[in-house]
Amino acid sequence: MRMVDIISRKRDGFELSEEEITWFIQAYSKGDIPDYQASAFAMAVFFQGMTQQEAAALTIEMAGSGDQLDLSAIDGIKVDKHSTGGVGDKTTLILGPLVAALDIPVAKMSGRGLGHTGGTIDKLEAFEGFRTEMDQEEFVHLVNKNKLAVAGQSGNLTPADKKLYSLRDVTGTVNSIPLIASSVMSKKIAAGADAIVLDVKTGSGAFMEHLEEAKKLARAMVDIGNSLNRRTMAVISNMDQPLGYFVGNALEVKEAVDTLRGNGPEDLHELSVTLASHMAVLGGKASDEQEGRRLVENVLNDGTALEKMKQFVKSQGGDSAPVDNPDLFPSAQKQVEVPAADSGYVSRMQAARIGQAAMMLGAGRAAKDDVIDYAAGIELKAKIGDYVAEGETLAVMHVNQDDIKAVSDMIQQAYSFSPSEVEKPELIYDSI
Amino acid sequence: MRMVDIISRKRDGFELSEEEITWFIQAYSKGDIPDYQASAFAMAVFFQGMTQQEAAALTIEMAGSGDQLDLSAIDGIKVDKHSTGGVGDKTTLILGPLVAALDIPVAKMSGRGLGHTGGTIDKLEAFEGFRTEMDQEEFVHLVNKNKLAVAGQSGNLTPADKKLYSLRDVTGTVNSIPLIASSVMSKKIAAGADAIVLDVKTGSGAFMEHLEEAKKLARAMVDIGNSLNRRTMAVISNMDQPLGYFVGNALEVKEAVDTLRGNGPEDLHELSVTLASHMAVLGGKASDEQEGRRLVENVLNDGTALEKMKQFVKSQGGDSAPVDNPDLFPSAQKQVEVPAADSGYVSRMQAARIGQAAMMLGAGRAAKDDVIDYAAGIELKAKIGDYVAEGETLAVMHVNQDDIKAVSDMIQQAYSFSPSEVEKPELIYDSI
Repeated sequence: MRMVDIISRKRDGFELSEEEITWFIQAYSKGDIPDYQASAFAMAVFFQGMTQQEAAALTIEMAGSGDQLDLSAIDGIKVDKHSTGGVGDKTTLILGPLVAALDIPVAKMSGRGLGHTGGTIDKLEAFEGFRTEMDQEEFVHLVNKNKLAVAGQSGNLTPADKKLYSLRDVTGTVNSIPLIASSVMSKKIAAGADAIVLDVKTGSGAFMEHLEEAKKLARAMVDIGNSLNRRTMAVISNMDQPLGYFVGNALEVKEAVDTLRGNGPEDLHELSVTLASHMAVLGGKASDEQEGRRLVENVLNDGTALEKMKQFVKSQGGDSAPVDNPDLFPSAQKQVEVPAADSGYVSRMQAARIGQAAMMLGAGRAAKDDVIDYAAGIELKAKIGDYVAEGETLAVMHVNQDDIKAVSDMIQQAYSFSPSEVEKPELIYDSI
Repeated sequence: MRMVDIISRKRDGFELSEEEITWFIQAYSKGDIPDYQASAFAMAVFFQGMTQQEAAALTIEMAGSGDQLDLSAIDGIKVDKHSTGGVGDKTTLILGPLVAALDIPVAKMSGRGLGHTGGTIDKLEAFEGFRTEMDQEEFVHLVNKNKLAVAGQSGNLTPADKKLYSLRDVTGTVNSIPLIASSVMSKKIAAGADAIVLDVKTGSGAFMEHLEEAKKLARAMVDIGNSLNRRTMAVISNMDQPLGYFVGNALEVKEAVDTLRGNGPEDLHELSVTLASHMAVLGGKASDEQEGRRLVENVLNDGTALEKMKQFVKSQGGDSAPVDNPDLFPSAQKQVEVPAADSGYVSRMQAARIGQAAMMLGAGRAAKDDVIDYAAGIELKAKIGDYVAEGETLAVMHVNQDDIKAVSDMIQQAYSFSPSEVEKPELIYDSI
């Protein structure tokens, strides 16, 4: 096989065989295919797309390119959840205890990464003493015991995906639906998921700004998962504004705990229950979403899920006291109000700007070595549809630093106002 | 500027500015832009094309990337001709003397290269003693004296084009009309042409197999030339069968001399006169093609062009005796007939296969260091429309080697036959 022929066939719209895709990924991983051929190939895929068979072949080959987690010693169907990323998204913190309370094993590998806030692991470290470094044996043991464990990502998972992704990042080929879908699904499969629920976000704070694109991505991932025998479904949810009212690490954990206690904001509660219901179905505990929803509401209302959260935190060495007394979470020295620069109904929010503002306050990493301030973040006082008068508080910055004028301006600029009433946006567009 | 942004803008169909293209070519030439970005860019151009302005900017930047010939010391308008390449194409050998005889300066830089036969320089070396190594001063002097000189390509012409072309060759991005057009035109401009006549070939022996694609390429090159103030026009000609009846080096020179004497085959004569007429117009010697044609026919019929050929060969150290006595050209030890395997009217010829067969007989180079056999080649006895009975001679191989069975088979297989009469193909489809 010659790479130039594979590139040309894709360029001309032919379907590649499984053998061709396997050969490409193996040779590219070994360094036998140069980056300049892989990038031309990626650009051809950008224009010509991939069939379901091609994307599945790419996914399974990338999943197999490095270490793969063997979670066969865990009892039950391991249902993983993946979000395409948004601002204020703390659903993982809620779903873990919620689904584990239904006796579905949640074995979560998580990274730190760059972004508006830290990753799930960083957020959980807001519990003093919480540790995520553990070997596979302990991980499996904890999941079997508590139905829930979160471990830091170890081993060399999907190196072919990492290599291809870094190349796509500098060659204008990130934005290809089959390549995004294969990248996400290869990681889920390497991490040992039996079934996968996807939360595909769309809007001003999401990677996929437009609903139609988000639907296509969801469809592509669901097709890949199902054709590789991982039951997969996707929810398309709104990310035109942050989810809930808090963006930050400790702030988000606090809001997640509130939600587990039944006092969460409506959107966060609704999305968590919806995703958990689907996980209940894929985990074999409910026959349809309706039944799943009843089970989920039960464990929320009777306190089982909240208890599960405490058990989980303690099992991984954390101090669970803040679950009962949220004042014990790390808190910032200053709380600085951001006043509205205008009066009116909030008509639009640039969610990505809110995220960026949180990062500038210290909540997230711009570079790998940045240190996270667990207490820093933003509390929103107004979201789309709310009326605000000029000078009233739009948001509160939780902050341990002084230089915050630019951040305050950025938050102000993230809001647009309308003189007439504005409807609250739909939260869940579709499920696939 | 960042290359990833330029790639993305091209990918999304935006027009790039002259500054962006200039920056890309300069940075790529210096090695500041890696191949993997250049190949992704080329693939984006494959799909999105280029506007006339973009292609002109690319051309002038590649032309300026290395040495450029300064032919300002040559009197008159220097009209260059370029053919996109075909089998049996010896028009350059005819056009040189023909146009020089009209007092239009022809300053031809030529390479050796790979192919079915050698390049123009190799063919001219069929004249004993002919030399093409000369400095610029001598080159200019010869053109001013004789109106015609052919020199081997020296200096470092269009290195950016060479670098980009080698990359395109292995990344499935050769076949892009704006990239092909810019590549050709950058070389013509670096070689000092004031005006350019293009012979764009289409058919089974041409790079552009389909007429519509050939027209697009011609239009792209003409637009680039004219927007860079080089008067440019193109003829679209048929390459469904070799031009003339001879493919080889000495064999082609002989046929060219026959044509200058007025005894050439109809297609070769007609194409040469057409191209020369256009060159007469661009060279300022005729006001339209009709007038150009009259002037050209005159210098052909009165022997001036043939005399010019002798003067030119002698001036560059060659023995011009074979011009008057073609038996003096190098000839092969053996002439082996290829019989027709079938009876009928020749309906199709795979011209590229005839070219490949000539190369296998020693007429051309497959690799850079191959030695050319000047005497080797193929003489066709039948072309499209001719009737041949089984066993009659289709072609004669002129050869100095023994292992020729495979070549004979290849020539046979290049022919298709029809039981009913077949029209001779149109030679010139269009001029642009």
